[in-house]
Amino acid sequence: MIEEKYRFAAEYMVTTTEIVHKTGLMVVAMRDRYAKLLMPLGPNTNHLGMMYAGSLYCLGEVSGAAIFVVAFDVTKYVPIVKEASIRYRAPALTDVTVEMSVTEERVASMERELQEKGKTDFVMDLELKDAAGTVVSLFRGTWQFRKMSPGFELKQNPR
Amino acid sequence: MIEEKYRFAAEYMVTTTEIVHKTGLMVVAMRDRYAKLLMPLGPNTNHLGMMYAGSLYCLGEVSGAAIFVVAFDVTKYVPIVKEASIRYRAPALTDVTVEMSVTEERVASMERELQEKGKTDFVMDLELKDAAGTVVSLFRGTWQFRKMSPGFELKQNPR
Repeated sequence: MIEEKYRFAAEYMVTTTEIVHKTGLMVVAMRDRYAKLLMPLGPNTNHLGMMYAGSLYCLGEVSGAAIFVVAFDVTKYVPIVKEASIRYRAPALTDVTVEMSVTEERVASMERELQEKGKTDFVMDLELKDAAGTVVSLFRGTWQFRKMSPGFELKQNPR
Repeated sequence: MIEEKYRFAAEYMVTTTEIVHKTGLMVVAMRDRYAKLLMPLGPNTNHLGMMYAGSLYCLGEVSGAAIFVVAFDVTKYVPIVKEASIRYRAPALTDVTVEMSVTEERVASMERELQEKGKTDFVMDLELKDAAGTVVSLFRGTWQFRKMSPGFELKQNPR
């Protein structure tokens, strides 16, 4: 379930970049400091009938935006991805989901760094799972959350 | 320029996975042991007007298939990606290209391992460049090339 206050951000996240929208990526759940995303097999099926490696990567990459949205003030800060890696463990033959959460303490500590330095790094390890709960991929991303520049505007409203 | 003998494989590579086709990924050049790919900015533009991080990843990931095609017998072997990492150095505000090549010696050595063990690992470091030649991302992938299983068939012919 997506909490009402996160509905706009959840929609924005999966529609604002055309190619992400075309993967069919969905936000399954969002509440304070927790999110769950789903990548459907459909348009992401490769020539072997399994989920394309790049789509699995995108599921991990967008998770940085998802955790940012449920933990930080989206009108003050902006997330960017610095680097990421993914390890493919098993073929994904179903839709794939990922869950993520962050503690209040960690958010508070990052908020302090944002106030002091204007930026903070965030490393997150994720398990991407198929419908049976098998971990198909391991993802590690490093994002930077930054104070938004004055006059900064997002490209467009979500569809 | 794409050498005539690689035209079919080049087309297959960018069309067989629906989501890759939708990125608009193009094969710019293919000859023995060399390939150049291009990811257009268009459908890959994010909310900040730059190329989406996941699309840059896909450009690197598909490079494993590209180098495989120009160096190995595609009727005997098949490539899979084991793991990959990407570091984002500068925003990509134009189309992005990547070039890759492999020496005859390295191919010969991998061919021997394929004969002996039925598989061989291939690590490749790539520089993803914008239209001005600036390196926007550094990609490292580890692929495994394997003997095709008996009876193995690809999903479909290219469109």
